[in-house]
Amino acid sequence: MKHHVALFALLGSVPATLGLWPIPRSLETGTSALKLAANFNIELDVPNPPADLSAAVSRSANYIKTDNLERLVVDRGASNSTAVAHAPQLKSLVLSLESGSPVRSIMEEATLELGTRREEYKLDVPASGASATLTANSTLGLLRGLSTFEQLWYDLSGETYTIQAPISVVDTPAYPFRGFMLDTARNYFAVSDIKRTLDAMSWVKMSQLHWHVVDSQSFPIQITGFMDLAEKGAYSSSMIYTPEDVQDIVQYAGERGIDVMVEIDMPGHTAIISEAHPDFVACAEASPWATFASGEPQCLMKPLISRLDTLWPLEPPAGQLRFASAAVQNFTVGLLNEVAKMFPSNIVSTGGDELNTECYTEDAETQAILQETGQDLEQALSGFIQAAHGTLKAQGKTPAVWEEMVLDHNVTLSNDTVVLVWISSMDAAAVAAKNFRIVHAPSDYFYLDCGAGEWIGSDPEANSWCDPFKTWQKSYTFDPLANLTEAQTSLVLGGEQLLWTEQSSPANLDPIVWPRAASSAEVFWTGATLPGGKPRNGTEALPRLHDVAFRMAQRGIRAIPLQPLWCALRPGKCNLNS
Amino acid sequence: MKHHVALFALLGSVPATLGLWPIPRSLETGTSALKLAANFNIELDVPNPPADLSAAVSRSANYIKTDNLERLVVDRGASNSTAVAHAPQLKSLVLSLESGSPVRSIMEEATLELGTRREEYKLDVPASGASATLTANSTLGLLRGLSTFEQLWYDLSGETYTIQAPISVVDTPAYPFRGFMLDTARNYFAVSDIKRTLDAMSWVKMSQLHWHVVDSQSFPIQITGFMDLAEKGAYSSSMIYTPEDVQDIVQYAGERGIDVMVEIDMPGHTAIISEAHPDFVACAEASPWATFASGEPQCLMKPLISRLDTLWPLEPPAGQLRFASAAVQNFTVGLLNEVAKMFPSNIVSTGGDELNTECYTEDAETQAILQETGQDLEQALSGFIQAAHGTLKAQGKTPAVWEEMVLDHNVTLSNDTVVLVWISSMDAAAVAAKNFRIVHAPSDYFYLDCGAGEWIGSDPEANSWCDPFKTWQKSYTFDPLANLTEAQTSLVLGGEQLLWTEQSSPANLDPIVWPRAASSAEVFWTGATLPGGKPRNGTEALPRLHDVAFRMAQRGIRAIPLQPLWCALRPGKCNLNS
Repeated sequence: MKHHVALFALLGSVPATLGLWPIPRSLETGTSALKLAANFNIELDVPNPPADLSAAVSRSANYIKTDNLERLVVDRGASNSTAVAHAPQLKSLVLSLESGSPVRSIMEEATLELGTRREEYKLDVPASGASATLTANSTLGLLRGLSTFEQLWYDLSGETYTIQAPISVVDTPAYPFRGFMLDTARNYFAVSDIKRTLDAMSWVKMSQLHWHVVDSQSFPIQITGFMDLAEKGAYSSSMIYTPEDVQDIVQYAGERGIDVMVEIDMPGHTAIISEAHPDFVACAEASPWATFASGEPQCLMKPLISRLDTLWPLEPPAGQLRFASAAVQNFTVGLLNEVAKMFPSNIVSTGGDELNTECYTEDAETQAILQETGQDLEQALSGFIQAAHGTLKAQGKTPAVWEEMVLDHNVTLSNDTVVLVWISSMDAAAVAAKNFRIVHAPSDYFYLDCGAGEWIGSDPEANSWCDPFKTWQKSYTFDPLANLTEAQTSLVLGGEQLLWTEQSSPANLDPIVWPRAASSAEVFWTGATLPGGKPRNGTEALPRLHDVAFRMAQRGIRAIPLQPLWCALRPGKCNLNS
Repeated sequence: MKHHVALFALLGSVPATLGLWPIPRSLETGTSALKLAANFNIELDVPNPPADLSAAVSRSANYIKTDNLERLVVDRGASNSTAVAHAPQLKSLVLSLESGSPVRSIMEEATLELGTRREEYKLDVPASGASATLTANSTLGLLRGLSTFEQLWYDLSGETYTIQAPISVVDTPAYPFRGFMLDTARNYFAVSDIKRTLDAMSWVKMSQLHWHVVDSQSFPIQITGFMDLAEKGAYSSSMIYTPEDVQDIVQYAGERGIDVMVEIDMPGHTAIISEAHPDFVACAEASPWATFASGEPQCLMKPLISRLDTLWPLEPPAGQLRFASAAVQNFTVGLLNEVAKMFPSNIVSTGGDELNTECYTEDAETQAILQETGQDLEQALSGFIQAAHGTLKAQGKTPAVWEEMVLDHNVTLSNDTVVLVWISSMDAAAVAAKNFRIVHAPSDYFYLDCGAGEWIGSDPEANSWCDPFKTWQKSYTFDPLANLTEAQTSLVLGGEQLLWTEQSSPANLDPIVWPRAASSAEVFWTGATLPGGKPRNGTEALPRLHDVAFRMAQRGIRAIPLQPLWCALRPGKCNLNS
């Protein structure tokens, strides 16, 4: 921001906070008031615009009309009234594509392979009232620019204004994968909850929903040819995602610039499949899941604690796919083949976390197969994963896996496999050393469920395995390139914040996620430095994140306050070293 | 429960969980199915019933019709269908008062002095279909019995049934004060949010709302003759409780068996009063609140850490009433006189926590007064508190204070003063040693805000001062009589769970409170032992608390799930030592 000292002298106001989130890579602002004309209009100067671009323009125009967000200062902007009264009026924002740009729909662009999506845009808002312009070389870039434009405006007695014109933005994300993971298996979320979340994600330019749709506890997705999985494994007949629901969700996401990476976690985290196919699952009923914890290891979920200093709870129910079995491989290949067809995304995850190999040591059926085929367990696992990934690749998909598939098993994976690092942020370097592409999903920074207590009975003194709560301030300090060599930096695709839902449902979805998850949205869009070159830091970010929370609230998201309103209205006054 | 082995053999079902919360002091259940007749009716056999009793009956009848809660078992009760089809039909519940009982309104009874309210009741539901009966010696007792009756019923394809008839309950609370504290000053809550909370409180027989209505950050309550406090100290003109709002809230609470203890915290936590009366407040602008923390103690909030092993954050803004000043005393007495008139409760709290005495050492005005009057600071404080309490007592009120007024200052308090113990559960014994009555509000068990991160900028590694999160399991283990002598047990009035709202708003009110706060509701209603004499324990309680959460959800409270639904439907299967 330039000249802001002059501005504040002029307006007699406290320092203005431009509520942009994520903050653009390059940003220049002025000191003039500018307001929207009563007939303000967003013009789409794109011949035959895709329907989802026209819809995005309509949404944006609507947000600008209905946000009615007052400035977060004590007088809520009243001191700007004279300046606003005399301010030039902005009559239009004109959107155009640079010549030669392909005119794809937003959804087509957003579901391209990671690294090939174009999201950059240029936004100019003159102080004079002359038309503002938004240009990009893709419809997706125009969508990102609209999200920025929406965040420029405040309400004062019905006038929609800024006091920082002219505004000039040249923007492009630092990383393509800016994600949020939702687990819909521990507890169920309605389609409307997912859509509401997608809306909020798009406002902060997030690009990726990681949909952890199934797990040991329930199988809520209907898959053609495999309908018995949901019929017997969903929590109820009303807690199911039909193929139409899936189509609805991926379309809704795509139109908002969000790609949906579905995860069918395997071969662990699959106990619920035993409801439809008891023969496919080892250890499902063999013994109570918790016996292992009481000193008699049998056939149970075994957490991979080797690289963690802390124990975390085993999780019921037990049961894992008998991956060595040809029947199970056929089933899995067929299932993934159908799943791949349901999702337009280029990426599909086969999960692969927390595999308890002891289960198979005691599983007579698996041991018989291994003996018959002359394979050891890891060879069988590698064959299973290769078959699974083979069917994905045959459909043009890139497979994604949790880090254990790379770090803890001898599985042959193709070089383009995307690896999600979750156990610890420290593990990224080991994945990079194996030359795989990385999505950061570290539990020590990005797990939104940590710190809410232990849900497993029955120890009253127990806390969550990943205590403490991961604050937005902590997430915001994440360095995507930590411990990587210069040569390895190109392996980083981005990262995501994650909500495991053992203790979440639609009841607390919004408050546990927002505005916290916006922190990584900025980490992975803006990168290491603020416009102007200073490093990102939480003290600078806080007033802007307040803005995000309050704007989200105006749009129907139950985002929580980060501080007492007293602090939100007095930027800097509640910092420890202010 | 008796004969349940026979029952399960008969119905071919898993063990039934009677979803009563708090569990009655005495309870006998049978093994028969019983369903409500289509024309089931609650008859009020009370001549000239008070309006709030009739309203309670209507609410109860409505809940029974609309709860539609299925049993929390895998088949959701389908295995009970034959038994339910052939079950006798219950046509009526008859409510009556024991002869000679005074016919007060529920509200009148609920706002009587603590220890004199009658809440006991007797409920009988025969297995035959003959009328169920609910008797009590007060309208408040009838209300408590209705809450129990509502919890007996489940839905199966439109039938409302139990499989545990006959049911016989004789019940009375262990402690009269079963509370919840809401802070409406750090962030604002609408009247509708408070009413929704009162509803949920009444369902688990909580008796006391502790309304921490004002604090340093805002003064949202309009008080006749002192309108400038809210006018200048509320966050906005729409974030105000008018006298009509207060009347609405206390009436709504009273009708639901809940007394409202308002707290006007003083002389600390009063910075916002400086907006209307700058002369009344010391240290308000003298220095940034956080200077103290950086090693230059001036005139700031000083936490009382002497009895804690941990530091907790100072909180902005600074500023405390100049209690030594006659003008401030007059103001305070006048204010409390009006506040006392607004609340029908017998108890009013004057707070008194976290007073920073250093502030006054550096306050020239206070020092001048002390010199003039020949008092020391503690003498002046005692005079101030006595004046404040004197005006309350003149209106028939019992004063309540935070523990520091007893443990850290030389304040003369009347023997009937109620003392809230918050810093640590260990402090109860010291308060009891001074022979004051106790309300347990310990941060180490009952603070609902702990573990959600530090809201003060700007240390990204900081966590909440009272980490970790206080789980329901932890709260549930609270022993109200720990470290007290036999003779001191009569000093315990009960306890409360508390929500300080630095990081809360209506957005997360329900999920941060429910069902967690129900844990203390049972601790203080049921006491140390389950019906039958076994000690209360979380493993037994969990399935019943699931029931509370799901029934609350059916009634519009955004209560969170305590576990994956897989666990909720399989009682015991997710315990570590099951």
